Amino acid sequence: MSVFLKRRSKKAGLPPGTPMYLGDVAHSTEVTVFRYDPQRWTEETWSRHTEPPEVQADSILWVNLDGVHETELLERFRLAFGIHPLVMEDIVNTDQRPKMEDHGDYIYLVVKMLQLHDVEGLAEEQISIVVGHGFVLTFQEEPGDVLGSLRDRIRMGTGRLRTMDAAYLAYSILDLIVDHYFAVLEGLGEAIDIVQEEVLRSPDSQTLERIQRIRRRLLLSRKAIWPMRELAGRLERQENPLLNSVPTVYFRDIYDHTIHCIDTLEAFREISASSLEIYLTSISNRTNDVMKVLTIISTIFLPLSFIAGLYGMNFVLMPELEWPWGYPMVLGFMGITAGCMLFFFRRKGWL
Amino acid sequence: MSVFLKRRSKKAGLPPGTPMYLGDVAHSTEVTVFRYDPQRWTEETWSRHTEPPEVQADSILWVNLDGVHETELLERFRLAFGIHPLVMEDIVNTDQRPKMEDHGDYIYLVVKMLQLHDVEGLAEEQISIVVGHGFVLTFQEEPGDVLGSLRDRIRMGTGRLRTMDAAYLAYSILDLIVDHYFAVLEGLGEAIDIVQEEVLRSPDSQTLERIQRIRRRLLLSRKAIWPMRELAGRLERQENPLLNSVPTVYFRDIYDHTIHCIDTLEAFREISASSLEIYLTSISNRTNDVMKVLTIISTIFLPLSFIAGLYGMNFVLMPELEWPWGYPMVLGFMGITAGCMLFFFRRKGWL
Amino acid sequence: MSVFLKRRSKKAGLPPGTPMYLGDVAHSTEVTVFRYDPQRWTEETWSRHTEPPEVQADSILWVNLDGVHETELLERFRLAFGIHPLVMEDIVNTDQRPKMEDHGDYIYLVVKMLQLHDVEGLAEEQISIVVGHGFVLTFQEEPGDVLGSLRDRIRMGTGRLRTMDAAYLAYSILDLIVDHYFAVLEGLGEAIDIVQEEVLRSPDSQTLERIQRIRRRLLLSRKAIWPMRELAGRLERQENPLLNSVPTVYFRDIYDHTIHCIDTLEAFREISASSLEIYLTSISNRTNDVMKVLTIISTIFLPLSFIAGLYGMNFVLMPELEWPWGYPMVLGFMGITAGCMLFFFRRKGWL
Amino acid sequence: MSVFLKRRSKKAGLPPGTPMYLGDVAHSTEVTVFRYDPQRWTEETWSRHTEPPEVQADSILWVNLDGVHETELLERFRLAFGIHPLVMEDIVNTDQRPKMEDHGDYIYLVVKMLQLHDVEGLAEEQISIVVGHGFVLTFQEEPGDVLGSLRDRIRMGTGRLRTMDAAYLAYSILDLIVDHYFAVLEGLGEAIDIVQEEVLRSPDSQTLERIQRIRRRLLLSRKAIWPMRELAGRLERQENPLLNSVPTVYFRDIYDHTIHCIDTLEAFREISASSLEIYLTSISNRTNDVMKVLTIISTIFLPLSFIAGLYGMNFVLMPELEWPWGYPMVLGFMGITAGCMLFFFRRKGWL
Amino acid sequence: MSVFLKRRSKKAGLPPGTPMYLGDVAHSTEVTVFRYDPQRWTEETWSRHTEPPEVQADSILWVNLDGVHETELLERFRLAFGIHPLVMEDIVNTDQRPKMEDHGDYIYLVVKMLQLHDVEGLAEEQISIVVGHGFVLTFQEEPGDVLGSLRDRIRMGTGRLRTMDAAYLAYSILDLIVDHYFAVLEGLGEAIDIVQEEVLRSPDSQTLERIQRIRRRLLLSRKAIWPMRELAGRLERQENPLLNSVPTVYFRDIYDHTIHCIDTLEAFREISASSLEIYLTSISNRTNDVMKVLTIISTIFLPLSFIAGLYGMNFVLMPELEWPWGYPMVLGFMGITAGCMLFFFRRKGWL
Repeated sequence: MSVFLKRRSKKAGLPPGTPMYLGDVAHSTEVTVFRYDPQRWTEETWSRHTEPPEVQADSILWVNLDGVHETELLERFRLAFGIHPLVMEDIVNTDQRPKMEDHGDYIYLVVKMLQLHDVEGLAEEQISIVVGHGFVLTFQEEPGDVLGSLRDRIRMGTGRLRTMDAAYLAYSILDLIVDHYFAVLEGLGEAIDIVQEEVLRSPDSQTLERIQRIRRRLLLSRKAIWPMRELAGRLERQENPLLNSVPTVYFRDIYDHTIHCIDTLEAFREISASSLEIYLTSISNRTNDVMKVLTIISTIFLPLSFIAGLYGMNFVLMPELEWPWGYPMVLGFMGITAGCMLFFFRRKGWL
Repeated sequence: MSVFLKRRSKKAGLPPGTPMYLGDVAHSTEVTVFRYDPQRWTEETWSRHTEPPEVQADSILWVNLDGVHETELLERFRLAFGIHPLVMEDIVNTDQRPKMEDHGDYIYLVVKMLQLHDVEGLAEEQISIVVGHGFVLTFQEEPGDVLGSLRDRIRMGTGRLRTMDAAYLAYSILDLIVDHYFAVLEGLGEAIDIVQEEVLRSPDSQTLERIQRIRRRLLLSRKAIWPMRELAGRLERQENPLLNSVPTVYFRDIYDHTIHCIDTLEAFREISASSLEIYLTSISNRTNDVMKVLTIISTIFLPLSFIAGLYGMNFVLMPELEWPWGYPMVLGFMGITAGCMLFFFRRKGWL
Repeated sequence: MSVFLKRRSKKAGLPPGTPMYLGDVAHSTEVTVFRYDPQRWTEETWSRHTEPPEVQADSILWVNLDGVHETELLERFRLAFGIHPLVMEDIVNTDQRPKMEDHGDYIYLVVKMLQLHDVEGLAEEQISIVVGHGFVLTFQEEPGDVLGSLRDRIRMGTGRLRTMDAAYLAYSILDLIVDHYFAVLEGLGEAIDIVQEEVLRSPDSQTLERIQRIRRRLLLSRKAIWPMRELAGRLERQENPLLNSVPTVYFRDIYDHTIHCIDTLEAFREISASSLEIYLTSISNRTNDVMKVLTIISTIFLPLSFIAGLYGMNFVLMPELEWPWGYPMVLGFMGITAGCMLFFFRRKGWL
Repeated sequence: MSVFLKRRSKKAGLPPGTPMYLGDVAHSTEVTVFRYDPQRWTEETWSRHTEPPEVQADSILWVNLDGVHETELLERFRLAFGIHPLVMEDIVNTDQRPKMEDHGDYIYLVVKMLQLHDVEGLAEEQISIVVGHGFVLTFQEEPGDVLGSLRDRIRMGTGRLRTMDAAYLAYSILDLIVDHYFAVLEGLGEAIDIVQEEVLRSPDSQTLERIQRIRRRLLLSRKAIWPMRELAGRLERQENPLLNSVPTVYFRDIYDHTIHCIDTLEAFREISASSLEIYLTSISNRTNDVMKVLTIISTIFLPLSFIAGLYGMNFVLMPELEWPWGYPMVLGFMGITAGCMLFFFRRKGWL
Repeated sequence: MSVFLKRRSKKAGLPPGTPMYLGDVAHSTEVTVFRYDPQRWTEETWSRHTEPPEVQADSILWVNLDGVHETELLERFRLAFGIHPLVMEDIVNTDQRPKMEDHGDYIYLVVKMLQLHDVEGLAEEQISIVVGHGFVLTFQEEPGDVLGSLRDRIRMGTGRLRTMDAAYLAYSILDLIVDHYFAVLEGLGEAIDIVQEEVLRSPDSQTLERIQRIRRRLLLSRKAIWPMRELAGRLERQENPLLNSVPTVYFRDIYDHTIHCIDTLEAFREISASSLEIYLTSISNRTNDVMKVLTIISTIFLPLSFIAGLYGMNFVLMPELEWPWGYPMVLGFMGITAGCMLFFFRRKGWL
């Protein structure tokens, strides 16, 4: 299976609006519920034997679901928060393009969370954010995210987060995810720098694989980050009163960061593309050096060997063989021949 | 004949509006007629000795024609459903660019159905969809399509399909075709992954052919999918009351999927383009390795052979030949020479 | 002289509005006059000793001039039909970019007629079309065009042509020229397919020339076809009552065909660009194969020759030479050496 | 100093509006004054001891200055014709991008005059045109321009020039300069054709230099011509009554020519880019041929030499040496070996 | 750490609006205060034990801070001049994309100052400019800038600077920074010219590094200069009365210069990209030459050596050895063989 496409074809043929998870499942869905107001906060793991948590007028509710493969469980949340079936389908089909949909009562955002693991490479995870009056729902494919510091801010009450409404929470989540793109790009930048150094110093066939891997990661990041520009731009321009509490300049900030990421990605892409050319040129350079050594050796010793072979012939009548100075003369002639060759190579600049 | 163009030139010179099929014909046209309402459905193969089926007020009629080369038969349907001659010309000339035309009473859509066959490669088929009040006509070039699951939905009454009008049926057909693009892209993605692996591990001249074949398929897919963006965008923005029953968000969904396909195609294109460069670099790498072996062997044995040849000369007066330690000394000198060469190669990093 | 530019510099320095033909002249201008209405038609070769034909209210006049180098003759037609001097300059300077100019009383169109000759390659000819009330003038550089079938339609009265006005005639001419682009693209597509096959199977230095020739033709076609998009778009949007009789959908058709041509050209361009890379890779592949043969042979026989040379030395004291089993032992040692080498090559995958 | 940038940094740090010439100076400024009306004309070299010529109501004044490095002299003209200091700065800083500025009383145009010299390559010269009521000022960097034919038209009174106002003169200058771009492109086209031929027939290391030189000239031309599109477009749309006398269609003409130049430049760029690839492929082809010769020779003679060496060994006990048919048998065996090799090469297609 | 991204990830997780410096710190912040009116000026180093300087109605205040890592110090200035926390965050996070923000009372500009050092390469420094009524604040990362000549103009009162308001000062700063881009581009242009020469004359593996270094610098410059276009465009179109005193034409000038820089950068990019191809071709050319020498030598001496080896065999019965003319005949035959080879090479054009 290609890294660029999840098995969406599984779904081809089902009626539109049928949610069906496309990824692999290795865990059961975990639901954590945060509820906070400026004074206090609670944090609990939701038990599936109880009702979905309810929105309350005087506090903000943040429900995070790790896992989108349990269709019945999701259906209960869908009904509890009044989400459209098509939205739920997009939440479950985790191969969406990042986008923003304004449904009046709530706003639906799909973004890609990128994390760089040293061993397995780049991990991409779809995170769906539903923002409504007084609540935020986040749907992730797997446990583990980049929102740890946000949870700490809720717990400790640092910053303005606890005093603001749900839209600000959603903005903070987006902000964190985009900020984390920079970490990913930094990691890629370092990998590119290492490969660049390797290409110039000691390229081997593993370098090729490394370059190829980096280019794939860049493409993957690009697919995730590029549509964020449109998403952020639409957030900046949207007029839903839900988001009124977040000043436009904040969304502009996310937009600027996204553009910055894209600029960087393009620069990386160009550099990594040139790496391959540099590599090829570098190998040609070396082959040229190898060839020179071979040619010098052959050009010196083939003629000498011929001369030696000449006087190794067994003809009865070879007058030179009888001459007393024959052997030294031949040696001298060989020396002169070799010297001429070396002079010729030096003039060619091969030595 | 190029894979990118059907023999359109056959038609050059005919008056505009003359329908003439451009493909090869190997079967006779088959017409299947579905008629359904929320309660019941009928499915029959239309006999060409009867009149074309008529639209009825309380049920939806779906007529599917497999084959567009029988001009008289098509003409009968054209008159029965009141289709413009230019539209019929486009239906028959199966080399159209995907597009949408609003003719007031009916809407005409041309799309490309893509199917990936393992053996013959990528099959492209033009499917023309005419949506009117209470009916949908689909014109395909050949039997066999991707709409099987849709037929099952009509038969079984799953989903909302049976309760909706003709526009929803047309939307469902479009949706299925676009969903199937993902299956095609997945197949291409897998082929690309295999070729990538091959390029890095064991490239040979067949790899070249495989890369070239993939690039052609990508180009073909691109020609089919790219115009769908415009088509979907126009569907989203159109104001014909015919399509009122399908919420805009559904067409937006098709639009989003198309954009997603295009993004993926572009990523594939870039990866497959880089495969060739990787291949070239990889071969240069190997040639370099081969050259090193040749150079090492030559550089060691050419000088040694020369020395051996030297003492194989038949000069009468060669004092060294008489020396008792001559032979061992020469052997020793040869050993030292070979050792120096090996040391030189190790320092160069060739060993 | 480059194939992309006619000697326009001849004209630099003349006052604006001076018509001066830039091509080579090998024939005298021939003028054919068609005059038709729904009932009858006449066709004659105009004699230059008579006045230019006059427009009549109840019939359509089509005057075709093959040759634009006889300035006085053209001037007579210019005055007879009231054409602006700048337009006549553009008609004569046959190196125009395709464009449409609305002059109120008449509309001026410049298009490029492409024809693919097997031997000489791609022929491009500028055809200027002037459409007025009741008449169409066409100016071609040379005899021979793609409009034969149109003349037949006038003669036979097939299609709607004879019943329509001058604008429809002009549209039919445009339609034919654009339809003929497909024939040219088909020819190019076939040439590309052949070259592709050749590149993969048996590339030689003539393949290079063929690729280069195809790319030039693609560029030439692109220069001719690309501006047609703008021209067709403007025709679709124009509001001159002259063209009222031709429904917009017809011009939209030409627009769609042009876009289709452009898509195909771009696909061709990409494929032919990749051909060169494939070629280069293919040659590197072969060089690698050749190198392997050379290296295997050298690596086996250079050491063996050295051993043989060793025992060909004439030292008085070489004990091995006296041994009764010396010769077989050396032969055996040589066999083992060669065997080791072959084993080494097999493990490297060179055999 | 790079060919793409004049030493603009000289100026960095001066207050905005300080005119300072950036080029090299090798001549003193020469000022020629044309004054004409439909009936008569005068032409004189202005002496710097007199006042700048004055505008007269009933005649057109054209002052041409060759040389923009004498700041005091320019200042006198600036004051006499009421030109803004910033404009004068742009006139003197001859590294401007072509542009058009409407200053109400006068219009300021910067364009690049291109001339192709056989020996030194492509010469670019900035020409500034100031058009006011009844006068045109042109500022050139050096004597020598492409306006000779325009001067002749004034002198001889051919065309409409003498009967028109200053705007028409300015238009004629622009027209001539753009017309001359075609001459430059023709020259480049010929150079490209020659290099293309050379690349396919007999590439050597000088070809590389030629390709590189052509690409630089193309880039230079592109930098000069590309902004002309915007300039011509603005001229077409401007509403300053100064230019009322020149019909919009004339500026449209310049626009069309510029687009045509740009199209041609892009085609040239693509062809010259492909030249390099063709060159590389062509060299690889030759290396492959050379390698084949080497491999054939080595593969035939290395085994033969080994056999000869074998029977040159001096073992006391080598029974074959005593056989009466030993020598002919060895010769025969050698012939068979060589024959097999040749057969093998022929089957490989190397012969 | 990659050269393209500062360690922004340090900041991920902090609440929005937290200023945190991302660079390395090696100095303490230095604050210089200029205060001037048309008649007089003062210049002093601000002591951190005093209050931030105050704006006065009749003079212009310019405060320059070298260093943005001392958060408390910056906070004092922030409060004194009423700057928004988000702005201060951008000032401190020196990895911003150049942009312009209109905050009503003041305008905030981020630009990149480029300086070309011979040894360390290209230095990029973020400079933030805050323009308000009667004051300009500039925040730089490190001491040392390109504004020396501007300070001199204040001190000496040259130009209009002292008579204008704060907006003009800000404009002058921008103008200087953009003017300095030309100096950077000139330096890059020279480096490119040198590398180009080297590539054609004597490419070695260091050339590769140089090309790579230049491309990185071009990318870096591009990231800095490209967004300036948007910034300058917005300055030209803005309507804040703060900037009323600076005529739009001045901002247009900056815009034009930026476009000019971008054009030049693109040309540089293309040339430096082609350098690599030229390099690769050039090396292939040389390898071809080397191969020819090797092949000529081998092709001449391998057959000759074989013949010599043949008559070195020790067969008892080799009649040629006894012939009196055997030796001269063999020598002659060898000479003829060598001559044929040389003739063959000359005909192939290898000699």
